[in-house]
Amino acid sequence: MRRCIAVIFSSLRSTDDPEGYATMAERMERMAAEQPGFLGVESVRDSSGRGITVSYWESLDAVRAWRAQPAHIDAQKKGIAHWYREYRIRVCEMLYESEFPGPDE
Amino acid sequence: MRRCIAVIFSSLRSTDDPEGYATMAERMERMAAEQPGFLGVESVRDSSGRGITVSYWESLDAVRAWRAQPAHIDAQKKGIAHWYREYRIRVCEMLYESEFPGPDE
Repeated sequence: MRRCIAVIFSSLRSTDDPEGYATMAERMERMAAEQPGFLGVESVRDSSGRGITVSYWESLDAVRAWRAQPAHIDAQKKGIAHWYREYRIRVCEMLYESEFPGPDE
Repeated sequence: MRRCIAVIFSSLRSTDDPEGYATMAERMERMAAEQPGFLGVESVRDSSGRGITVSYWESLDAVRAWRAQPAHIDAQKKGIAHWYREYRIRVCEMLYESEFPGPDE
């Protein structure tokens, strides 16, 4: 199995600036997908503003490079100032995975 | 930092049996919290049926023991037969974490 780093971003949105947030979120998702080492992303937010986004990367270096992108740093600052009441980021190394339906189903 | 294993369960619900699913989900969350080695859980599902649940554990043995609990095995079988259109489980080792507001904010 090739290396995979999972970045779990769990957050609670504020009610501030929903349009600005939506525009930024879409832009960041598009930019992340163009970064070297990006493998994929899954994201869910419910109507109460609670969300979990997990992005998958080839290496810790790829995670660090994305975190240091100027446009991403700007989004992080606005997130802290306006968009999030709280968040938590957990950077993890994937050990194994399974899926349903399986590859042969 | 003590060891922490994150189990990322991302799924798409079927429209089958919403009440049976809700009862089971609540029961499983309560049971998981009583397992040895359980550290916490975060769960979000949106109105389209897309969900991400991340549970946190002290060790891989704790993850395996929970997976092998008879009531949980029964729930897993019903999940495959009725409740989920698809799911993916990724078992990960946490490397580091950060949060906002920070511990001193």
